[in-house]
Amino acid sequence: MASQHQNGGRSTELRHDPVTNRWVIFSPARAKRPTDFKSKNPQNPNNNSSCPFCIGNEHECAPEIFRVPPDLNDPNWKLRVIENLYPALSRNLECPCEEKQGMEFPGRVIGGFGFHDVVIENPVHSVQLSDMEPREIGEVFLAYKKRIQQILSVQSIKYVQVFKNHGVSAGASMSHSHSQILALPVIPSSVSARLEGMKEYFEKTGKCSLCEVRAKELLIDESSHFISIAPFAATFPFEIWIIPRVHSSHFHELDFEKMVDLGGLLKLMLRKISLQLNNPPFNFMIQTSPVQVKESESCYTHWFLQIVPQLSGVGGFEIGTGCYINPVFPEDAAKVMREVNLPMQD
Amino acid sequence: MASQHQNGGRSTELRHDPVTNRWVIFSPARAKRPTDFKSKNPQNPNNNSSCPFCIGNEHECAPEIFRVPPDLNDPNWKLRVIENLYPALSRNLECPCEEKQGMEFPGRVIGGFGFHDVVIENPVHSVQLSDMEPREIGEVFLAYKKRIQQILSVQSIKYVQVFKNHGVSAGASMSHSHSQILALPVIPSSVSARLEGMKEYFEKTGKCSLCEVRAKELLIDESSHFISIAPFAATFPFEIWIIPRVHSSHFHELDFEKMVDLGGLLKLMLRKISLQLNNPPFNFMIQTSPVQVKESESCYTHWFLQIVPQLSGVGGFEIGTGCYINPVFPEDAAKVMREVNLPMQD
Repeated sequence: MASQHQNGGRSTELRHDPVTNRWVIFSPARAKRPTDFKSKNPQNPNNNSSCPFCIGNEHECAPEIFRVPPDLNDPNWKLRVIENLYPALSRNLECPCEEKQGMEFPGRVIGGFGFHDVVIENPVHSVQLSDMEPREIGEVFLAYKKRIQQILSVQSIKYVQVFKNHGVSAGASMSHSHSQILALPVIPSSVSARLEGMKEYFEKTGKCSLCEVRAKELLIDESSHFISIAPFAATFPFEIWIIPRVHSSHFHELDFEKMVDLGGLLKLMLRKISLQLNNPPFNFMIQTSPVQVKESESCYTHWFLQIVPQLSGVGGFEIGTGCYINPVFPEDAAKVMREVNLPMQD
Repeated sequence: MASQHQNGGRSTELRHDPVTNRWVIFSPARAKRPTDFKSKNPQNPNNNSSCPFCIGNEHECAPEIFRVPPDLNDPNWKLRVIENLYPALSRNLECPCEEKQGMEFPGRVIGGFGFHDVVIENPVHSVQLSDMEPREIGEVFLAYKKRIQQILSVQSIKYVQVFKNHGVSAGASMSHSHSQILALPVIPSSVSARLEGMKEYFEKTGKCSLCEVRAKELLIDESSHFISIAPFAATFPFEIWIIPRVHSSHFHELDFEKMVDLGGLLKLMLRKISLQLNNPPFNFMIQTSPVQVKESESCYTHWFLQIVPQLSGVGGFEIGTGCYINPVFPEDAAKVMREVNLPMQD
């Protein structure tokens, strides 16, 4: 009973979102009040004079791909795109896509060809993405776009995942603000599942599932070109999606004006998360479409930016089933996030 | 170059397993030597006199479902199956499966009907599952089976997930050795994906993908009725599958003799993991088939027990794509685990 009161009388539900194409369990009996969620593991980047991402330490990094401004001899760069020193995939493999059967085991194997790059978002160690101006964040997005467009010319790349890990427990091995671009020779399973779910919804209704998101209860904030929402079947507590208002399959179709607008809304969401949830570790992912999208697919594929604060771990149930238990209803998370009062920035 | 030497000259690969139906990146450049993997977070259950799972504290628990031996008045129980005090799903909902559209958002909702039970594996706080005799572990499996069979009589249950979380960072909120049974009114996404992958393999080859596992390189140990392997496209470093030799769709088809045999092999794997990997947090999951399996599906659905030591966290790439980066090739993990020399037990 107590838990029901804390959660506005909501009772346990399972929700299925066409976009994730997965069931999520919403379980108020396991919840604190939505406003009581705080990170036990707040992130404060140490100032580290030996950080290879800091300005002046460029020689300690893997090779640079480009910098902004573009003059390689300009020591006063604003951001740099470099190779990952420990790449998950290798850009030097010759025969990327030959598929072979695996040993005596019934599986498939291909060579690990791909690109794994790092975007150093700012030259200064102590500056986080959320400290930057919308225009500067827009320039980070522009760097993603430029690098994606370079990669698209490589025929065997099927999907490009842009993501950011902030904080050690969110997977960041470096505290200097950075994001990553991983280009794959396959379409990963969550992306296929998303396409399938969005396709099914389109076939049933004739509409794109993300153009359809109009629920006031789930809305957090909006800007000229984007809305931010708590998704209807959020996998994680306080998960946020930023969705372009106008239908678009690929992130890299965005122009710079919209990137600056997105930068402003992302900054707002990150500042709200930091204040409300005690500066938690977080991830964001640009959920775009595979490189090749058929004409018939472009009407239901709609990119978005997903933000996940890391507030709880994962156990055997989630590993076993791919079904998550979320103690916070998205309507409640949206209300909390809508009402965060940010102090003015200096 | 250094990393290639450490990994026997292996180069980066992507592998796809019909059973998980997912691509995994194997990336030696990011790896330590396979023998250097150790948990930084070893698990040692504290003796806790106020633990509600301990013998004598039964009144502090949620209602009991059954105990072994079955006499409710026998204070000397060996194991107990109880309701979870904070269940993810509610056994008291009346109308479990009515589906409705979600608010103004294009999703689906059903009531959170289901069962969420706890199996207290031993009355004594300090005794871990791996300390128990194969016969006693067999009795834990028998309790799973008995409870599953009770649940199967409820028509709206579609899937039953048995799992164990060991250690706080693997999701265990109680250190007293226990496992959990969660019965769902839907088939979760990883299970659907597994069925689809196994079906596709069967349609191509006429064979069950898990009956086909015969790779010596991946074999760790074997018993009369089971083999333990490092799966060909392991999602996590040192992930282990224990697979019944004889084709079988459901865990609950197992008889007690085979359960004791499985208990022996599980005990061996858990002791090897603990010794080799510094007593890491871990999960195990019984990957069985949905409650209803059609005649035509039974030829390719084959249950197994999946063990995952928790050695590394998850970042934005994995959350975004469902594709994992595993730094340890399964052949190397299998060799390391094969060669672990266990001390004799008292």
